[in-house]
Amino acid sequence: MELTILGCYSATPKTNTSPTAQILNIRNHIFLIDCGEGTQVQLRKYKVKFSRIQHIFISHLHGDHYFGLVGLISTFTLLGREKELHIYAPKGLKEIILLQLKLGKSWTNYPLYFHELDTKTPELLFEDEKVVVHTIPLKHRVYTNGFLFEEKEADRKLNIEAVKKAQVDVAYYQKIKKGFDVKNEKGELISNKELTFNPAAPKSYAYCSDTAYFPECIPQIMNCTLLYHESTFLEEHSQLATSTRHSTAEQAATIAKEANVERLILGHYSTRYSSLQKFIKEAKPIFKNVELAEEGKVFNI
Amino acid sequence: MELTILGCYSATPKTNTSPTAQILNIRNHIFLIDCGEGTQVQLRKYKVKFSRIQHIFISHLHGDHYFGLVGLISTFTLLGREKELHIYAPKGLKEIILLQLKLGKSWTNYPLYFHELDTKTPELLFEDEKVVVHTIPLKHRVYTNGFLFEEKEADRKLNIEAVKKAQVDVAYYQKIKKGFDVKNEKGELISNKELTFNPAAPKSYAYCSDTAYFPECIPQIMNCTLLYHESTFLEEHSQLATSTRHSTAEQAATIAKEANVERLILGHYSTRYSSLQKFIKEAKPIFKNVELAEEGKVFNI
Repeated sequence: MELTILGCYSATPKTNTSPTAQILNIRNHIFLIDCGEGTQVQLRKYKVKFSRIQHIFISHLHGDHYFGLVGLISTFTLLGREKELHIYAPKGLKEIILLQLKLGKSWTNYPLYFHELDTKTPELLFEDEKVVVHTIPLKHRVYTNGFLFEEKEADRKLNIEAVKKAQVDVAYYQKIKKGFDVKNEKGELISNKELTFNPAAPKSYAYCSDTAYFPECIPQIMNCTLLYHESTFLEEHSQLATSTRHSTAEQAATIAKEANVERLILGHYSTRYSSLQKFIKEAKPIFKNVELAEEGKVFNI
Repeated sequence: MELTILGCYSATPKTNTSPTAQILNIRNHIFLIDCGEGTQVQLRKYKVKFSRIQHIFISHLHGDHYFGLVGLISTFTLLGREKELHIYAPKGLKEIILLQLKLGKSWTNYPLYFHELDTKTPELLFEDEKVVVHTIPLKHRVYTNGFLFEEKEADRKLNIEAVKKAQVDVAYYQKIKKGFDVKNEKGELISNKELTFNPAAPKSYAYCSDTAYFPECIPQIMNCTLLYHESTFLEEHSQLATSTRHSTAEQAATIAKEANVERLILGHYSTRYSSLQKFIKEAKPIFKNVELAEEGKVFNI
């Protein structure tokens, strides 16, 4: 699993601060998470293949999280895309996009599916044999979801030496990987644990932006491998955080600690701060394994 | 008068090609003409003061001409703008913008006026004592207008030596500038032309994008000081120009020649061309005084 930060600032894009967008590469899926203005340029800058994006997750309808989407959808058309595109977003986004395509007489030439969200409990958005994605309901000025991306338990790893020694037929290998006991050529039942190793533990990524301090989300993100939690402000502006329903670095670290996650990434910084090191300084005493989101940074999970 | 090119490419923004946006500084007005995705970043890059923009002219509802507008409107709010903002655009844009502000619960804290256009004849959009702006109806895949920005005849210039010699009271200076004959201290009537010089001839800028070859616009832009005319394609792709209702460099030059303008700027290039010099090469045999729009270029008119 690999996370690439395309933009990590709140509010208005500037020459050196891009609004929120991330690419999550998980078990060969390329998921785009949020899509602020200019995201298509950032995708080119960081050499993400446009055609590999089939699922876009939009947290909420503030501009710094979706104003780049209609441009990306239009560019897909101009590039002759044929593959379907799925957009998971709060109710209303479909109306916004379709109105613009209609008025520009610029319908897509590929299938475009909107999965509109309005529930306030975790919802299953995507599932295949390798990955599952749920919403993480958050608390902001408008209806907002984070997203929890989880790998599924992988197949057990074949202990090829043990399998050969036990004289198990090749035809049983898939069954062994799925965890079954099998009979060998002599008709003896061999226990699965003698034939396999444990697979790598499944990993998970929780994306929480934008939100006020909201400990209600902790049970859902408990023990996750990586948590991105917004920290728009420092504690010195905690009143502003409260009134705008954002979090401070200290609050993000508290969530990470209480949820017992492995790593924390901070982001969605207000552009008022000239140095980001203060965010680390504020979070570290509470949660040690904390890093800063920065444009172009790649996190290997 | 001064024109700054913020972006001059068609279709999809890339790392080094911005979609259409221009700033026209005319008699102390700062007019923004079109507003493709990323325009607010371009405005910062070229140090245009956001608060000085009070009038935005949108030619048509294709994304490369307006996808940056909603972000700019939102940024004005975040910057605490109080001054009113006027947007002149095809019918439909108001609905697009207001829907997004509503769903984001992000109403502007400044007065926002939409002047929606749907007529197919030239329309007066703006007029004060110094400047007048009309639409230039064009021919494209969707309803499209160019814009004609004209300085009004300036006051006559005082010949201060002659005025003093004629012993005219200072109280009459404004009247002299307006072209009146006045009496001097001896009661003698002095002809205005003895007291003044001709002012600089009023200048004009015609912005024509996007459009198929459309000679019907020539009477309106006749003799203008500067013409920007789109040239999305070269003649080698003239069929593509016809089918997409765009112009070639040769067609843009023909319009400039027939309209007897002083200077021509080409722009709105398709990103398929690696060198822009071919546009000049194609246009120059028809219209000599031709230049290329390029990002960041400033044209003094």
